[in-house]
Amino acid sequence: MTALNLAAAQAVIEATLASARARAARPLAVIVVDAGGHPLAFAREDGASFARLDIARAKASGALAMDADTRVLAQRAAGNPVFFQSVTVALGGQIAFSPGGVLVRDAQGLVLGAVGASGDTGDCDEECVLAGLRAAGFNQEMVP
Amino acid sequence: MTALNLAAAQAVIEATLASARARAARPLAVIVVDAGGHPLAFAREDGASFARLDIARAKASGALAMDADTRVLAQRAAGNPVFFQSVTVALGGQIAFSPGGVLVRDAQGLVLGAVGASGDTGDCDEECVLAGLRAAGFNQEMVP
Amino acid sequence: MTALNLAAAQAVIEATLASARARAARPLAVIVVDAGGHPLAFAREDGASFARLDIARAKASGALAMDADTRVLAQRAAGNPVFFQSVTVALGGQIAFSPGGVLVRDAQGLVLGAVGASGDTGDCDEECVLAGLRAAGFNQEMVP
Amino acid sequence: MTALNLAAAQAVIEATLASARARAARPLAVIVVDAGGHPLAFAREDGASFARLDIARAKASGALAMDADTRVLAQRAAGNPVFFQSVTVALGGQIAFSPGGVLVRDAQGLVLGAVGASGDTGDCDEECVLAGLRAAGFNQEMVP
Repeated sequence: MTALNLAAAQAVIEATLASARARAARPLAVIVVDAGGHPLAFAREDGASFARLDIARAKASGALAMDADTRVLAQRAAGNPVFFQSVTVALGGQIAFSPGGVLVRDAQGLVLGAVGASGDTGDCDEECVLAGLRAAGFNQEMVP
Repeated sequence: MTALNLAAAQAVIEATLASARARAARPLAVIVVDAGGHPLAFAREDGASFARLDIARAKASGALAMDADTRVLAQRAAGNPVFFQSVTVALGGQIAFSPGGVLVRDAQGLVLGAVGASGDTGDCDEECVLAGLRAAGFNQEMVP
Repeated sequence: MTALNLAAAQAVIEATLASARARAARPLAVIVVDAGGHPLAFAREDGASFARLDIARAKASGALAMDADTRVLAQRAAGNPVFFQSVTVALGGQIAFSPGGVLVRDAQGLVLGAVGASGDTGDCDEECVLAGLRAAGFNQEMVP
Repeated sequence: MTALNLAAAQAVIEATLASARARAARPLAVIVVDAGGHPLAFAREDGASFARLDIARAKASGALAMDADTRVLAQRAAGNPVFFQSVTVALGGQIAFSPGGVLVRDAQGLVLGAVGASGDTGDCDEECVLAGLRAAGFNQEMVP
């Protein structure tokens, strides 16, 4: 797929949650945002705490804001906490330093948007998103 | 239905958007929030502008905050603008004075959450939400 | 009474809610804040919507901020909406233009704090607060 | 008890403060919030500084937001400060990393809300809350 429209966003969410259930992850919230960081679709599984949307959105938005998956941003922030602390405030909290925020790219590498997930460990959140993106036809080249 | 879980929220959104397409409404954003005002699910149709989520959420959250559908709140606000302007700021913008924010109740009248829609006129937004709620088995007694 | 401590604040809340029940008011939230606008005690009756604390607090805080009960402030705001709209934003929403925010004074007229209530009409909210203050020994000279 | 209504919230606060006085704790602020994080009741003892409400509320709300008592969250935050710093901003400051924010559960483990206390050490704040919850009939299985 190359267009990140509502149908594609819903397909990504469905596949991400299917992956979470297949690996018995804790209840997740998953959001898909467009290239401007604006939400296209969102779902919070039963049992996920109420802040999970905010954290998932911060992951997706932060990945776009800094043009890198939050796995990379978390590593950078650990090495330079004062800068990334100031970035966090400058962005009004729209960034979160834990894996699970993943850029969505077309076949040419153009950024189409991002997915954010929160609920289990950052590693598990990211695995579910990557599986969901591949199942929905995005980021096929990314094999974690 | 009496439980407003993720499956129910997604059913409401699907039915609301089906109603919107059946009446050729402009592209909508629809959100379902729980009784605490926290999002369960959200979808923004292709072509809906990027602020539609914020407006839909403000309708849903505002209906819960003041315990009335936003159609009623819009009428009250027109009659008492200075109070409702201050309420808007006190609530951090989480209220919007236009039809389309509708409380979801169980058979006993208990508030389970709310739905908000934005994209067409407030009247049309509300009609789509009411049709969506009925189709998904909620608020059966409400016939607009 | 002349000191607005926790025991006095709780007495005011209990008497205010007793007054509300005696007149079959809708479920109320009531807050008592000290002279600095900081909360001493708060109660939200079962059935009052979740934003009622924010509105009650904005009434109490706003009365202190402008040194007048919110009944008076609502009248002023109706006559000069653009100024009071800017005040609302300058105060971060900590003011609400509806009766129910009442200054608490000692026998010499010194401001000790304020009470805010929200849930029914502003008039009813204020009547409950005034009755509660009198029952708890404050503002004895105020007979609405 | 299984319902966290106003009467139950007030009973929890009364028992928490009784526990604080029995152990000669410093003056506390205690808040009880519902499952959506919205305040039900609050009390600040005489002598507690004015920010204690905000801290107590951040403990209660943060426990709900992340589905864990703040004792656990404080441990996690110490091990992953950059992530939890970003979460703090994403949640608008509605989380505090110190013991004293405790989830309230029914007999089946369902989260009904949370209690937050602030004023003494985090350990002491938490002991008072746990004692208060048990005295009021909640979280009976929790023996610190």
